[in-house]
Amino acid sequence: MQRRTFIKKSSLTVLGTATLSNLPINSWSQTSQSSLRVNSKRIDTRIFELAKFGRDENGQGYRVAYTPGDRAGRAWFIDLMKKAGLDVRIDEGGNIIGSRKGKNNLLKPIAFGSHIDMVPDGGNYDGALGSLSALEVIEILNENKIITEHPLEVIVFANEEGGLIGSMAMVGRLTEAGLQQISQSGLVMADGIKAIGGNPDQIKNAIRPKGAIHAFVELHIEQGGTLETENLQIGVVEGIVGIVDWEVVVEGFANHAGTTPMNLRMDALLTSSKLILAVNEVITSVPGKQVGTVGKIEALPGAYNVIPGKVTLGLEIRDLSADKIEMLFAEIEKRAASIATESKTKINFIRQASTSKPALTDKSLQQKINNTANALGLTTKFMQSGAGHDTQQMASIAPVAMIFVPSVGGISHSPKEFTKPEDMTNGANVLLQTILAIDKE
Amino acid sequence: MQRRTFIKKSSLTVLGTATLSNLPINSWSQTSQSSLRVNSKRIDTRIFELAKFGRDENGQGYRVAYTPGDRAGRAWFIDLMKKAGLDVRIDEGGNIIGSRKGKNNLLKPIAFGSHIDMVPDGGNYDGALGSLSALEVIEILNENKIITEHPLEVIVFANEEGGLIGSMAMVGRLTEAGLQQISQSGLVMADGIKAIGGNPDQIKNAIRPKGAIHAFVELHIEQGGTLETENLQIGVVEGIVGIVDWEVVVEGFANHAGTTPMNLRMDALLTSSKLILAVNEVITSVPGKQVGTVGKIEALPGAYNVIPGKVTLGLEIRDLSADKIEMLFAEIEKRAASIATESKTKINFIRQASTSKPALTDKSLQQKINNTANALGLTTKFMQSGAGHDTQQMASIAPVAMIFVPSVGGISHSPKEFTKPEDMTNGANVLLQTILAIDKE
Repeated sequence: MQRRTFIKKSSLTVLGTATLSNLPINSWSQTSQSSLRVNSKRIDTRIFELAKFGRDENGQGYRVAYTPGDRAGRAWFIDLMKKAGLDVRIDEGGNIIGSRKGKNNLLKPIAFGSHIDMVPDGGNYDGALGSLSALEVIEILNENKIITEHPLEVIVFANEEGGLIGSMAMVGRLTEAGLQQISQSGLVMADGIKAIGGNPDQIKNAIRPKGAIHAFVELHIEQGGTLETENLQIGVVEGIVGIVDWEVVVEGFANHAGTTPMNLRMDALLTSSKLILAVNEVITSVPGKQVGTVGKIEALPGAYNVIPGKVTLGLEIRDLSADKIEMLFAEIEKRAASIATESKTKINFIRQASTSKPALTDKSLQQKINNTANALGLTTKFMQSGAGHDTQQMASIAPVAMIFVPSVGGISHSPKEFTKPEDMTNGANVLLQTILAIDKE
Repeated sequence: MQRRTFIKKSSLTVLGTATLSNLPINSWSQTSQSSLRVNSKRIDTRIFELAKFGRDENGQGYRVAYTPGDRAGRAWFIDLMKKAGLDVRIDEGGNIIGSRKGKNNLLKPIAFGSHIDMVPDGGNYDGALGSLSALEVIEILNENKIITEHPLEVIVFANEEGGLIGSMAMVGRLTEAGLQQISQSGLVMADGIKAIGGNPDQIKNAIRPKGAIHAFVELHIEQGGTLETENLQIGVVEGIVGIVDWEVVVEGFANHAGTTPMNLRMDALLTSSKLILAVNEVITSVPGKQVGTVGKIEALPGAYNVIPGKVTLGLEIRDLSADKIEMLFAEIEKRAASIATESKTKINFIRQASTSKPALTDKSLQQKINNTANALGLTTKFMQSGAGHDTQQMASIAPVAMIFVPSVGGISHSPKEFTKPEDMTNGANVLLQTILAIDKE
């Protein structure tokens, strides 16, 4: 940064807060703004400070939403937000919202952020990078005494990992039944929300109406290996995939594994194995980024000496197109029907209620991210998010966008989760410049 | 039966016991003996009387060894043995042995029997048919005032289902470690043996030395569907298969099922499915009666949205030839190696200690059973026993044989286990006539 190159420009006004009263000048030219860069060291340091909260005796992270670790991490984050001059409140869903005034407070706010809760034994980057980079954007604006046209909001969503609970509250999708679920912390969701300063009894007050937010942008680690494998730096997310789950019940006949000849068996596990291969074949039979997984299996009775009579599988298909998911499933069902007939077993698919619809990001925001990244000399890839994110909820009330940075080895939800410091920096710089670009529209 | 056709023959002597003092005549010709038939109704009635012991509130059988149901069933059986004039003792392993004197008590005894304990929620025929038919042989000999040359022994082995415990004690294979295992009843094996009148502290006294028994014959339900499928009446068992178990550990890499593209996965469940199909292909690729089963599977972490990183399988191969088992396993290992390479996963086979060796039955006894069955107008099949039986232990100290009768639907170890009354009668008649034929050698 070259403070001496600051140029006063009447289109930007002085920040009215006391914390910024010592600013020597109050505005930059657009050209100068484009040279702003985040403080890589601060992001890296804060990633590891946040990671300490909720660590167990083995040094593994259990900052699960609503637990003491999550609460301590949130308190630390809120303190940083306040130090950065943000006006902080906790909404009824437990989301932390830090507001910064704009020049024109009649404009709708530009919001950005992520979450800081984690899965049990998870990693240090999922959610944390997006949250700390959002705060970093504010720090850089403060340090450079920049007031945006739009008001800004840094949002740290509550309990992302437990089912996008905070963002569902914000868009009005958190139901009474959802509040009564048991959360990963062991607390009923409503009690968990209370524990972090939310107000489940007034949950509807957390709702931000459609059109109330100018744009929402989330920086996140990819959690997959595509960027790393293709040696690319920034993922421009086209949308968050829809997810459909099925419980698959395969019924054969449990019988003695010694006395039942091979040709007289109705082996539910053998049938299941054929089905698992068929799922893989169907999913990979057409071009595209769809994924299909059998992640769960239980075979009963489950003994060396008994032919499995019943197997229950968990099947999941994800894609940006709901139609494609249905097309793939129809093909799997067709294959299953012939496998069942051949093997004298029954296969039943039970669609699960937890289905989520694909959420597309805003095309013009995608372009802004791509242009911004390219202007920063970074390579990009338009891609889908295979994982769920708060952004998919926010898509129902605002134009949204996501920026991905590479995950080493594609590993996530694991203590081995890692994103290189230079990739974190790249992502945070793209976030910063994208927010400024949106503001300048 | 036609009592008026009895012919006195000096080669058979009068039974010396009080219970038989009212016999009008004391011997039959061999021709007449061949016309002896069991009392079908008595066998059928007793099957259902025995089935009452250990029934739970749903009417399902839990006559698990050493439990109150097993003990009540044994008391009932011992009472019947005593009423049939047998000299009953319980050996140190808990086996019930009912002896009947022969004409020449210097000859070694001919033994026959089975077991009356059952698996939890098992059926009414497994073990029970062989035990009650052995008693039926004695009843028929009594009613027809026949004294065999050889002494006879009806043996009801203790805890067959828990690992051939009683017969292992009888042949000297029940170790101190075996006595310290926890039995299905919840009791330590030694305590279970005590509970049924055995003496684990003197377990070596249960040992019958090699050559002490002239022959051992066991009638049993097939527990498979071969006889029924081929519409045959009697199985002449050539041997009891060897059993080798392996724990198979498949290691891939657990990762996010949404963010990990199909081509970057190391899915341990997909690999396992290929392996399960390969096991089936290898086992059925060569002629013979060998069976191979994957009966157990566990996939970790086991969630819809996580690619399985580790799968543990239970593999079992059974055959009459130990060499063939090894040959088949070598081929499976070879297939596994190439599957592992292709799918970038690891597959490890861990051979289990519970391995049992094949046990062959005596060829001349096989022929006697076959001839006896044919003389009774019954169709036969030489076949292997895919299940373990006490006979496989007895094979180490005596010439042994087994007679199989059809199991409806091949179902066993299930409340649905069923053998038709006419098949029970056929089996018991073959047992009766085989014992008489052995005695006449």
